[in-house]
Amino acid sequence: MKKIAFLVTDGFEDIEVKVPYSRLKELGYKTVIVGTTEGREITGKRGKVTYRTELSIESIKKEDFDAIVIPGGYSPDKLRMNKEVVDFVREFYKTNKPIAAICHGPQLLITARVLNGHQLTGWESIAVDIENAGGDYLDNSVVIDRNIISSRKPHDIPQFIDAIISELDKGEKEELSA
Amino acid sequence: MKKIAFLVTDGFEDIEVKVPYSRLKELGYKTVIVGTTEGREITGKRGKVTYRTELSIESIKKEDFDAIVIPGGYSPDKLRMNKEVVDFVREFYKTNKPIAAICHGPQLLITARVLNGHQLTGWESIAVDIENAGGDYLDNSVVIDRNIISSRKPHDIPQFIDAIISELDKGEKEELSA
Repeated sequence: MKKIAFLVTDGFEDIEVKVPYSRLKELGYKTVIVGTTEGREITGKRGKVTYRTELSIESIKKEDFDAIVIPGGYSPDKLRMNKEVVDFVREFYKTNKPIAAICHGPQLLITARVLNGHQLTGWESIAVDIENAGGDYLDNSVVIDRNIISSRKPHDIPQFIDAIISELDKGEKEELSA
Repeated sequence: MKKIAFLVTDGFEDIEVKVPYSRLKELGYKTVIVGTTEGREITGKRGKVTYRTELSIESIKKEDFDAIVIPGGYSPDKLRMNKEVVDFVREFYKTNKPIAAICHGPQLLITARVLNGHQLTGWESIAVDIENAGGDYLDNSVVIDRNIISSRKPHDIPQFIDAIISELDKGEKEELSA
């Protein structure tokens, strides 16, 4: 069973956690809400969705997961101030396993300094920050460039989920053929 | 009477509008809440403070004001997506009159592309975005570099206000001695 970590804290874009988390779980992936501390209740910016963090960032290793998802809202701007989260993202990036970021999610990738030379998308307001970080911003519903999957906004969630699944399946096929 | 425009929209850090706006008004400055549209009710991220925008960005000219203030919270990330606001900030910057940004306020300066070569401060999470934009991030309560005044967070508001006043007074002295 493939494992996917959702890196989230308070103020996340409700639907950007709820829909991918539920859908990927339904499809048989092991989805895990990872926060800065374990067992903490976190609430979306619209107050519609609440989760309890299942694991803390300190308790996980990059080997534990096949992909990570970084939902948007105000959550990425908070997570980027947490050194453990930033270090985990940077180390996970080096494994070449998929990192999927939507909306403001790329803010965390900017701080982890893994965007240089990558094509990606994200929420319109941070396009300039992505470009200044050495990324190449594209205004597409989903962009896959090597191990970074990115989408702009809630409207893109279906394509975002499809891309996560296809990249995870690709990894599986590569493993099987190896 | 010196005029100060506060560039603000929904989700501003309540105290970063309320305190400087009230204090500067008390001291005899003409303070004006400028939004993307006129007469719109805007509310802070903590829901504690509500203002009605007094002027729209389209209705003002750079000659109308002696300084602009960009409070933080979620407001600057929204304003940076508004072309009129971004263009106004860029044009105002060229006049060399003071621009005072606090917390996430520098996000708007990044999009206006006026930070290159400037020393400044701001909310910790955007330090990397400031550096990537060519700015030199300092972790000080207030930084004044030429016409950009900046502070990090609500705690710095007293120094932030003092710096705005001193820069406005300096401008006045320069005018008187000219």
